[in-house]
Amino acid sequence: GIYNYMPLGLRVIRKVEAIIREEMNKAGAIELTMPVVQPAELWQETGRFEKMGPELLRIQDRHGRDFIIQPTSEEVVTDIARQEFKSYKQLPKNLYQIQTKFRDERRPRFGLMRGREFIMKDAYSFDKDADSAKASYQNMAGAYRKIFDRFGLRYRAVAADSGAIGGDLSEEFQVIAATGEDAIIYCPDSDYAANIEKAEALAPTHSRPAATAALQKVSPPGKTACADVAELLGIALQRMVKSVVIATDSRNDKGEVIKTQLHLLLLRGDHEVNEVKVGKLAGLADFRLASGAEIEAHFNCKPGYLGPVALNQPLPVIADREVALMADFVCGANEVDAHLTGVNWGRDLPEAQVVADIRNVVEGDLSPCGKGKLAIERGIEIGHVFYLGQKYSATMKATFLDTDGKPKPFEMGCYGIGVTRLPAAAIEQNHDAKGIIWPDAIAPFTAVICPVGADRSPAVKDAADALYAQLLGAGVDVILDDRGERPGAMFADWELIGVPHRITIGDKSLKDGRGESHPRRAEAAERVALATIFPFMEQKLGLKS
Amino acid sequence: GIYNYMPLGLRVIRKVEAIIREEMNKAGAIELTMPVVQPAELWQETGRFEKMGPELLRIQDRHGRDFIIQPTSEEVVTDIARQEFKSYKQLPKNLYQIQTKFRDERRPRFGLMRGREFIMKDAYSFDKDADSAKASYQNMAGAYRKIFDRFGLRYRAVAADSGAIGGDLSEEFQVIAATGEDAIIYCPDSDYAANIEKAEALAPTHSRPAATAALQKVSPPGKTACADVAELLGIALQRMVKSVVIATDSRNDKGEVIKTQLHLLLLRGDHEVNEVKVGKLAGLADFRLASGAEIEAHFNCKPGYLGPVALNQPLPVIADREVALMADFVCGANEVDAHLTGVNWGRDLPEAQVVADIRNVVEGDLSPCGKGKLAIERGIEIGHVFYLGQKYSATMKATFLDTDGKPKPFEMGCYGIGVTRLPAAAIEQNHDAKGIIWPDAIAPFTAVICPVGADRSPAVKDAADALYAQLLGAGVDVILDDRGERPGAMFADWELIGVPHRITIGDKSLKDGRGESHPRRAEAAERVALATIFPFMEQKLGLKS
Repeated sequence: GIYNYMPLGLRVIRKVEAIIREEMNKAGAIELTMPVVQPAELWQETGRFEKMGPELLRIQDRHGRDFIIQPTSEEVVTDIARQEFKSYKQLPKNLYQIQTKFRDERRPRFGLMRGREFIMKDAYSFDKDADSAKASYQNMAGAYRKIFDRFGLRYRAVAADSGAIGGDLSEEFQVIAATGEDAIIYCPDSDYAANIEKAEALAPTHSRPAATAALQKVSPPGKTACADVAELLGIALQRMVKSVVIATDSRNDKGEVIKTQLHLLLLRGDHEVNEVKVGKLAGLADFRLASGAEIEAHFNCKPGYLGPVALNQPLPVIADREVALMADFVCGANEVDAHLTGVNWGRDLPEAQVVADIRNVVEGDLSPCGKGKLAIERGIEIGHVFYLGQKYSATMKATFLDTDGKPKPFEMGCYGIGVTRLPAAAIEQNHDAKGIIWPDAIAPFTAVICPVGADRSPAVKDAADALYAQLLGAGVDVILDDRGERPGAMFADWELIGVPHRITIGDKSLKDGRGESHPRRAEAAERVALATIFPFMEQKLGLKS
Repeated sequence: GIYNYMPLGLRVIRKVEAIIREEMNKAGAIELTMPVVQPAELWQETGRFEKMGPELLRIQDRHGRDFIIQPTSEEVVTDIARQEFKSYKQLPKNLYQIQTKFRDERRPRFGLMRGREFIMKDAYSFDKDADSAKASYQNMAGAYRKIFDRFGLRYRAVAADSGAIGGDLSEEFQVIAATGEDAIIYCPDSDYAANIEKAEALAPTHSRPAATAALQKVSPPGKTACADVAELLGIALQRMVKSVVIATDSRNDKGEVIKTQLHLLLLRGDHEVNEVKVGKLAGLADFRLASGAEIEAHFNCKPGYLGPVALNQPLPVIADREVALMADFVCGANEVDAHLTGVNWGRDLPEAQVVADIRNVVEGDLSPCGKGKLAIERGIEIGHVFYLGQKYSATMKATFLDTDGKPKPFEMGCYGIGVTRLPAAAIEQNHDAKGIIWPDAIAPFTAVICPVGADRSPAVKDAADALYAQLLGAGVDVILDDRGERPGAMFADWELIGVPHRITIGDKSLKDGRGESHPRRAEAAERVALATIFPFMEQKLGLKS
């Protein structure tokens, strides 16, 4: 998970950095650089030194003092703010860096996609109040759209969960790619997009049907998975209700568990639990899955046959909104190899104490925007904008003097872009059997000139040199392939590398006074009169309209 | 020793980087980026993982695997070369990076001058033979002169010791500063310059005077320092000879010391031993200073009264070239509180087995260039070019196929510039009581426009805005101070920051149609007609001649 960035890759990274830097500066952010190796003291102030898992690489110097290698820089930047920004008059401020980061991933994979050492642009905003912080957030969200537009990639800005605070002030910027790790939920008929954690499953609009079936115990032996039980019973998976048991622990002052409470989540057989949504319900912020032993002790039954009817001991029941409207449903009987059919709320079991959206949306669900049905595609997360509130500033006592002369913690936001991950995502999105197809803006070279037969034809060499000088002079990032390779090998190299524009100047076509333009995405080359190649390219590259 | 680079400092660093990058690219070097966190395996191949002291920060990842944080990248770049450069046809190559480095200094000091985390440009050349490697070295030495010329600082390229190999192919680039850590030896009448380790003390041209005094034992009680003994005896320090005892150890296959040999170095009382020169003498490559116990056992006398006459046991005597030509000299008598005067070679003791240059030069010594006397000034080392030969490539079996089809280790060179140290050195060289005085090329801003009274005079605001737009349009890195501070505070800020060119537009002088130009180095401001300020500045900034 640690890589050298070789020359062509580094050219791409430098272009990505330049685009980010330009738009960040335009948005009023100020660049600085924070250290890669950071003192543990600051990370102990927020408790992250202890709380974070082994992905935080902790090291000791020669004197045995603790340090970490930065995965992000909230602590250091908050320390800078509390030293530098003394008054509300100095606010708002947005500080950013483009700097090496390290996360000690357990399983680094997909090359630069999830490496251990990587380059990230991380920005942090400091504001005097929540309104101003929200404006700073929107300013960054806007700058991110400009940045991602300039990259020339298909992407979506996706609503993401913002934790306990911040309302809707969290968005991920996802580059669309079939190989992406993340599911992106979107509405093809509007600009609604959210990640799977965030996307709301709308409340059903129908009312609960009346009960028609009698409660019956059936015994599909040895089957625990909903789909298997449904198949055996010959019913649709949508008629099953599955049970998920979670636990919450109460602790004393010393942090010891003094009481554990189990809760029963009910979901339709074809739905999956959404842990983020569950965690937002009252009292469930720190829930965990219950252990097998805890379940058996409470239900007097092995997991796999659980259900909300005929409970051994009572426990809070939380039904998904879909489940709360089901009738004649099938669930476990709290008895090995036994299920119940024809189960009905009110008649066979009390109404659920809590009814809430606790499931992941699925393709075809109605979109929360009200304009169509949800679709799902895959994405690679490259950016994230996030409203932090006072999470770090309050803990680190990072305050400024407000208009009333009293100290007040900064309102903060944080904004990241994965600089070295972006080229990997660009390749995932844009490639074919021949190799990479770079967008113009971040290609290692925008154009390549391939002279064919320059060694035997001075005319070819002169024409290639002249065009090279013209394009360079116009500020085009062009390269002249003067290696003297044969055309086939030369073209294959540049197709593999993915330079978006190729101009071939060969002795044959030169006899007709022509060269060839062959964009990487085009099927075939286009012959262009030598005299007009330069203006032709200027237009193609958007230098002149 | 770990710092944030705040916005103004980062602007300086970015300009330094840009100058370096431009000249490195012009010199044909290729930029890449190697990781900050590097696997220990490569460092074990060269043995540096074990050999280097605690300044090499060794860390372990979550799986307990060893890594280091790069202080330089010889191992990684040699690994790249052995993978990428298979044939002599691909050579020469020069690979460089501008990247974060870490040295776990025991006592970080002087801020960025000797920090633990810093940014370095490190380049490495790969050649097919020594001749080509020397050409690559000279190419880099030339590029470094261009880079340092562009920084706008006073500097010297100083010959440095090149270790066992490489002849004269090692130069340091020293920025002149009274506070510098290094002594630079130079000849005011030529371009000779060397560091103290390297500078040769020429062989004296006079012959040894005849003996005139009788050998006598004197007892200046309790005095061991040469200067004290000389004072007590009422003689010049130049007539004293001091003794330095060194040791060499022979080891068996297991690395255990099986024999230790002491050697006696003789220097004139006012001279200091040069350990690099001593280490180059036959058999003394791994010498160390002898311990007090070793000295007492051999000389049967405490250190402080040692000398080459009447030795308890014989040992090799190495005399500095100056000492070998002394007559009637004074030295220790190998007896507590006793010294000998009137000592003469040949008469009182045998001629020294070895006569060599083993001392540091001193101010006033004749220059090796033959053109004058040596002077000494202080410098801060910012760059180093060094011919490595096959030191790393042979150990790491990094070979290419030579013209004869046989594998051959690369001939290498390495070339560093301390990117974050340079601004610190620039400040040491260029400051006054008011603050920093940046050279134009690396100033955080080249020029600042200070409008005075812009809040009450629209004419001032308009004139300042117009000039700002003109200068920006001409590519000048200019800033407009629109904070609305009072003139005194505003000027003091910019003098402290050290922006080299200030233009003031105030309502008073504007009534006469004038503004003021006040370069940071100038005593007084110069009034310039408003209409001509822009061309005036263009000329001052060298945009037009």
